[in-house]
Amino acid sequence: MNKYAIFHQPESRYAYALSDNKLRIILRTAHEKFGSVEILYNNKYDFTKHRNTAVMTKFAETELFDYYKADFTLADVRLAYVFLISQNSKNYYYSEEGISESYDFELAYYTFFQFPCINGSDVMRVCDWTQSAVFYQIFIDRFARGNFEKDDKYINSEWNGGCDRYTFAGGDLKGITGKLDYIKSIGANALYLTPIFASDSNHKYNITDYTAVDPQFGSQSDLEELLKSARERGMRVIIDTVFNHCDQKHAFFQDVLKNGVKSRYYGWFFVDGDFPDTEKGNYAHFADCKYMPKWNTNNPETRRYLIDIALKYLNDGFDGLRLDVADELSHSFLRQLRSEVKEKYPDKILLGEVWHDNRHWLRGEQLDGVMNYKLQKILADYFGAVPIPARRAAERMNRLLLMNTEQANATALNFLDNHDTPRFFRFTGGSKDKLLCALCAVFVFPGIPCVFYGTELPLDGAGDPDCRKTFDWTFKNSDGGFLNVFKAVLALKKEGVLKGGAVKSVTAQNGMLVIVRENEHGKITAYFNTGGKSRIIECGGSVLVSINYKNNRLLNNGALVVKV
Amino acid sequence: MNKYAIFHQPESRYAYALSDNKLRIILRTAHEKFGSVEILYNNKYDFTKHRNTAVMTKFAETELFDYYKADFTLADVRLAYVFLISQNSKNYYYSEEGISESYDFELAYYTFFQFPCINGSDVMRVCDWTQSAVFYQIFIDRFARGNFEKDDKYINSEWNGGCDRYTFAGGDLKGITGKLDYIKSIGANALYLTPIFASDSNHKYNITDYTAVDPQFGSQSDLEELLKSARERGMRVIIDTVFNHCDQKHAFFQDVLKNGVKSRYYGWFFVDGDFPDTEKGNYAHFADCKYMPKWNTNNPETRRYLIDIALKYLNDGFDGLRLDVADELSHSFLRQLRSEVKEKYPDKILLGEVWHDNRHWLRGEQLDGVMNYKLQKILADYFGAVPIPARRAAERMNRLLLMNTEQANATALNFLDNHDTPRFFRFTGGSKDKLLCALCAVFVFPGIPCVFYGTELPLDGAGDPDCRKTFDWTFKNSDGGFLNVFKAVLALKKEGVLKGGAVKSVTAQNGMLVIVRENEHGKITAYFNTGGKSRIIECGGSVLVSINYKNNRLLNNGALVVKV
Repeated sequence: MNKYAIFHQPESRYAYALSDNKLRIILRTAHEKFGSVEILYNNKYDFTKHRNTAVMTKFAETELFDYYKADFTLADVRLAYVFLISQNSKNYYYSEEGISESYDFELAYYTFFQFPCINGSDVMRVCDWTQSAVFYQIFIDRFARGNFEKDDKYINSEWNGGCDRYTFAGGDLKGITGKLDYIKSIGANALYLTPIFASDSNHKYNITDYTAVDPQFGSQSDLEELLKSARERGMRVIIDTVFNHCDQKHAFFQDVLKNGVKSRYYGWFFVDGDFPDTEKGNYAHFADCKYMPKWNTNNPETRRYLIDIALKYLNDGFDGLRLDVADELSHSFLRQLRSEVKEKYPDKILLGEVWHDNRHWLRGEQLDGVMNYKLQKILADYFGAVPIPARRAAERMNRLLLMNTEQANATALNFLDNHDTPRFFRFTGGSKDKLLCALCAVFVFPGIPCVFYGTELPLDGAGDPDCRKTFDWTFKNSDGGFLNVFKAVLALKKEGVLKGGAVKSVTAQNGMLVIVRENEHGKITAYFNTGGKSRIIECGGSVLVSINYKNNRLLNNGALVVKV
Repeated sequence: MNKYAIFHQPESRYAYALSDNKLRIILRTAHEKFGSVEILYNNKYDFTKHRNTAVMTKFAETELFDYYKADFTLADVRLAYVFLISQNSKNYYYSEEGISESYDFELAYYTFFQFPCINGSDVMRVCDWTQSAVFYQIFIDRFARGNFEKDDKYINSEWNGGCDRYTFAGGDLKGITGKLDYIKSIGANALYLTPIFASDSNHKYNITDYTAVDPQFGSQSDLEELLKSARERGMRVIIDTVFNHCDQKHAFFQDVLKNGVKSRYYGWFFVDGDFPDTEKGNYAHFADCKYMPKWNTNNPETRRYLIDIALKYLNDGFDGLRLDVADELSHSFLRQLRSEVKEKYPDKILLGEVWHDNRHWLRGEQLDGVMNYKLQKILADYFGAVPIPARRAAERMNRLLLMNTEQANATALNFLDNHDTPRFFRFTGGSKDKLLCALCAVFVFPGIPCVFYGTELPLDGAGDPDCRKTFDWTFKNSDGGFLNVFKAVLALKKEGVLKGGAVKSVTAQNGMLVIVRENEHGKITAYFNTGGKSRIIECGGSVLVSINYKNNRLLNNGALVVKV
């Protein structure tokens, strides 16, 4: 037995509560054959006296490892357990003290694994509405203009003109309100808006006033109208919330510039020296942007200020926050934010921008979910110009799914692209087939799908700012089938089987990536190939959406979703 | 290269802040030879452009693994990094995407490891006073009686009589106050008191009133006098705090017994049905003790009630809380408790009773430290009747130290025995030599040493209740050397080199367990054998405490502490 591969950790992704009385236990091993993999368990106060046995079943594999699980519905929610693995007629016990060929149950209270107690307030909960949500992300300046009476001297670009970092095209909140029916018609039922508050840039991630809608985008009443119109259509709206940094023109930073260490707000930022110097940049700021000083979210006063802003947004009617650069905010801030938000608004969500390992944010007391950059990268690599093998894609998807709890997976915001990445259409080398396949994968994968505005055309574009082109409202879809399939993919989310974070399997079969979802609502199997040597495989049951929207394309760049 | 063994995890024990600008990065490998183990790093916004290189040094090994570390003092506290391991002229990169022979630095922002930002409010801090504290744990009823005017009809046992679960011997707070000079004289400077509030048992872990000192033990003014007298002597006091459960006679549970689901306090407990039934025990309770109903620490009202009690204790003058059955309290409760306690009393500590894997409590936002049962078990196994090999003890100590951050290790409460275990003297089979050696190990190991009352005699005893015998104040130490060495061991903690959680190495040499501590204050090497085949080894420097308190015992059951 490969002892290096054996792994389990209590109160982690390897042992977590699914609900108030349901517990999941996961064990990792190398790829090897075992006679059996079992778990010996009981409530922790009776464990030394007697144990029950449950068989663990293999449910996933990655490049190096196999994963076994057992789910428990418990009367007493305090569980003690030890693993028992048999191989070649030998028994191995795996406890907190490691792997051994015998185990002293008399002294087990020193060494058993335990899930000491499921406490309801620690259980991660999935907001129900998120499980049928289909988000549409809008970069406001480029989506649609609705107000033609505003002072528009700031607009320095034709609609459908080029775009660069300093281009203003005129999109606004009224424009979005006017397009809600359109957005609904293509199958989205929720909006993710990039920032809308006072800021001199087109992206508005550098905020000078967190409570005033930027006049380029409209007014507070335009915002209220948008939120009301969305609500009337059953649509949810989340807002990009920038608490990592502000603009140097924010009044508080200006006060520090003026009064230095004597400013009431000096400790609200990270200044090295008595005065900040905007040329030297002797203060913490976002990336290399000296014009965006970082908030000190360790300071309780700063926390109070920012959390009150968050509560105002949610009180105004937003259904959640997408926290920009969430991974640089202090965890203590995020915990306080969550605690205060969930106390008042248990049904509103906190999503964070975390590109990397995100376990530390997803233990239940900080974020509900993250922007799923890791999924995006797998899809870009699988549906990209030089595709990785299906087997590798499946392994990476399993690794991703195993990084977090089922609940956190269910609340990941899954996307192909956004305002910070090239358009996925570009990744595929301009293949509409691949774009649709990848989009289908986003919808079949556990999580909340989110479509970047214009994908339905599709818009093309390299990275920022090229991915932020204006929406082409004059566009005539010469390729009518594309939009139809696009809509069919978005409609997939109506299937109850795609709700929740549970996946039955992600594997590679015959060179195709195969994702199987199954729950009480049914079963869906999705096959994805990227052209080449794939062979037809048996597909039992009825075809729900066949994305070979032109005949004979199934085997080249097709996705096939089969519902049993 | 053994890929199964390679492991790192951001924002965990493998990557954590030591202070506001110091970061520790740890990498795990199998026991193998490498050409080099390096870390490529830079601030995360410049990482794709260029990287610095640091060599990682091996600092610990366990049964299966080697551990390498690199400490960084950072100007920009946002770090990106990738490991580079060379072996047999091959290079291996290890990033969030796993191990590969090449690495695309252009796209590194998708896959590098990162410590996204050190935020001061997330950094675990060690309370300075704990690092020179020597605790003396007192089981009140059995230590000393000071009040001879109290109504003592409850006393049903002679002092120095036998003890069982229902024996009352008469010890009280006045008794402790009267013995403070004695306690100080043997070298302790802090007290850990088992519960003292209204309760009908001798142990008082079943509380009926959290704010009234139990009359058997004294009055509020007796408590104030004890705390004042301790403070005058520079002694700290922590109190055992039982928030997992109360006694069924607690007024709130009585209200539920009477009014059932209509009681205001129904939701403060976990009752299955409309009414609790103390015979059936249809409510969550501690272990199999139906008379101790569990508090529902998920309920915000219950949390408020318990946290106010905690704040009262600290306001009364206690320096910290030892939370009984801490692992069954909700994490949300512990987070709120810590947040409120540390806001008012940053210098007071929260220790918890967690026998098992404790990582989940020691991330900086819940407990400061735990009762170190894992250390106790290693010491019992090494100094016990059938000792495990020194090599195995060293491996297990390293595993224990690697489970947590240096700060959490520095605040672990290390003990040989307590009210819930047999006396360590019993573990050793009655060897005073081994008892002193093990005690010495408790003092040399990172953490806060805690001596159970009577160890200095030493008291003998099996598990609860036999370990709770009365202190024998008539005891004449026929073996004067024992107490002298005992005191010499307690005095060890005055050495600055034993402050903090850092250890230079724990190894086995010549069949002895060897612990080396080193910091800016100097270096101490402690050798521990358990008799048998050990050979004399070179000991440079001056001998600080030679615990061969009878000549010629060093090699049989000796501990030797060498200060360089």
